Amino acid sequence: MYYLGADIGGTNISVGIVDKDCKIIDKASTPTIQGRDYHGIIGDMVKLCKELAEKNNIALSEINSLGIGLPGLLDKKKGRLVYASNLSFDHINVIDEVKKLIDLPIYIENDANCAAIGEMVCGAAHGNKNVIYITLGTGVGAGIILNGKVFRGAFGGGGEAGHMVIRAEGEMCTCGRKGCWEAYASATALRREGRIAAAKYPNSEIYNLVDGNIKLIDAKTVFDAADLNDKVALEIVDIYTKCVAIGLVNLVNIFEPEAIVIGGGICAQGDRVIKPVTKILSERVYGGVLKTKVCVASLGNDAGIVGAAMLYKNFD
Amino acid sequence: MYYLGADIGGTNISVGIVDKDCKIIDKASTPTIQGRDYHGIIGDMVKLCKELAEKNNIALSEINSLGIGLPGLLDKKKGRLVYASNLSFDHINVIDEVKKLIDLPIYIENDANCAAIGEMVCGAAHGNKNVIYITLGTGVGAGIILNGKVFRGAFGGGGEAGHMVIRAEGEMCTCGRKGCWEAYASATALRREGRIAAAKYPNSEIYNLVDGNIKLIDAKTVFDAADLNDKVALEIVDIYTKCVAIGLVNLVNIFEPEAIVIGGGICAQGDRVIKPVTKILSERVYGGVLKTKVCVASLGNDAGIVGAAMLYKNFD
Repeated sequence: MYYLGADIGGTNISVGIVDKDCKIIDKASTPTIQGRDYHGIIGDMVKLCKELAEKNNIALSEINSLGIGLPGLLDKKKGRLVYASNLSFDHINVIDEVKKLIDLPIYIENDANCAAIGEMVCGAAHGNKNVIYITLGTGVGAGIILNGKVFRGAFGGGGEAGHMVIRAEGEMCTCGRKGCWEAYASATALRREGRIAAAKYPNSEIYNLVDGNIKLIDAKTVFDAADLNDKVALEIVDIYTKCVAIGLVNLVNIFEPEAIVIGGGICAQGDRVIKPVTKILSERVYGGVLKTKVCVASLGNDAGIVGAAMLYKNFD
Repeated sequence: MYYLGADIGGTNISVGIVDKDCKIIDKASTPTIQGRDYHGIIGDMVKLCKELAEKNNIALSEINSLGIGLPGLLDKKKGRLVYASNLSFDHINVIDEVKKLIDLPIYIENDANCAAIGEMVCGAAHGNKNVIYITLGTGVGAGIILNGKVFRGAFGGGGEAGHMVIRAEGEMCTCGRKGCWEAYASATALRREGRIAAAKYPNSEIYNLVDGNIKLIDAKTVFDAADLNDKVALEIVDIYTKCVAIGLVNLVNIFEPEAIVIGGGICAQGDRVIKPVTKILSERVYGGVLKTKVCVASLGNDAGIVGAAMLYKNFD
């Protein structure tokens, strides 16, 4: 039996076909093209699924289900995407619409929760039941799994760990408040600090690496400059990892999960982030003993697809 | 049938006898006297229980159980208090020791969790299953109940919301880190700010209310001075309630519980705290809609006793 998983993001629609051992047999993607009608987006996703099955000589009868990860807040009972900054799906029942195009059991879930499920079922947190997946990317998202089930809070809107204030009256956040973790721990925040520093220190490697074209600086530029032992970059990375760690310490103090898995663009930095963050966690967690494992997402960008494909197992 | 509940704190041992409708029939207390041997503390608690039953003409056969709230981290399976700043019970099995003195089923639980249970079963959060009880007192403690069960994290040490950093590099906390919520939202923090302000502004009502004896200033003094329209006190209370609110916003964003119940010494201030805090929450919660009810503990200081008496219902 095979399992289809889709990850509909603001930029790309990614689809994968997964076997019973959680291995991705094949995958494909196509641009989401934000702003277009839902028919187009859902149609393209189903088209990719069918093409992928055909290409791999897999009949529909051999496919168990299609799971779909969506960015935003879901009303799972109604099959709706209630709130999303990137997609206008709030007026339709996603499950019903997809079923019109492909005859399979359909499951939907928030994308960060899909990634958390993927990492728990067959990634870095395999064997754990209490897992927090944190994506450090454009924003800071969280997928929280407690006792093997997705945690949503009493009204379905919980889990917004990125919008926990870690510095009252601090940096402005996209949510309109000040000092949220996201405003310090996202790749966007690191990019912001890199650009400010490059403008201030034109002798720094951050500036040199982009030949003074400051708009080209992203999070990776800052890490690369730090690797060249650039003092300015080293300090920014130091502050950045401390801010990542503060939020993680808070989450460990509150949840004490078995594993925290770091995903998103920043996870490509691996030990450059994990090592200093784990050191701070070990020093600062309440009670002084860190029992939680902290690691990078082993499925990388595929965690969402794999988790979506596993949704049929029911994590509610 | 009747139910005994005990709350062993750092200062007092309180015991109550509760009926089937959760009403306290009678209660009594005696000083804990920190530092003495556990025999003395447990002995006094059981003595109080027996006296209370006798005084109310209740036979042991009419008593269902004795539940005990303890300050600190419990290993419930072993019946031990693993970590507590005020009591040295870590080497004994509390349940076994109590059973030697009174022939009843014995249950133990962390004191903040007892208060949360009390408020959920028959207090301000009656009818809710997802409740966060926050005690604003000497420190900031939390009892978190998810889906009707006490939340402890994967290793039993979760729920330390008081040690969530809300201002990185901020005030020193008793835990050794900087900027914890407890360092801003506890009664101790408010007292600290009141004393600093009184020393700086000898014309303020905070100073006047204690006739310049700054050591007499406590959290209530600051609220009383604010009631007299003292500018200095009003500003301190304003900053204090904002800090209380920041931590609560974080908890709502993460947990989105049905109810947050505020207990501890500060809850005596009622609407003076709840009103500004609820206003900030309504403005700042992620998504802009506050679905969580925020209220003061309706059982007041008895929440711990009542919750302890209800432990036989099993909230694990």
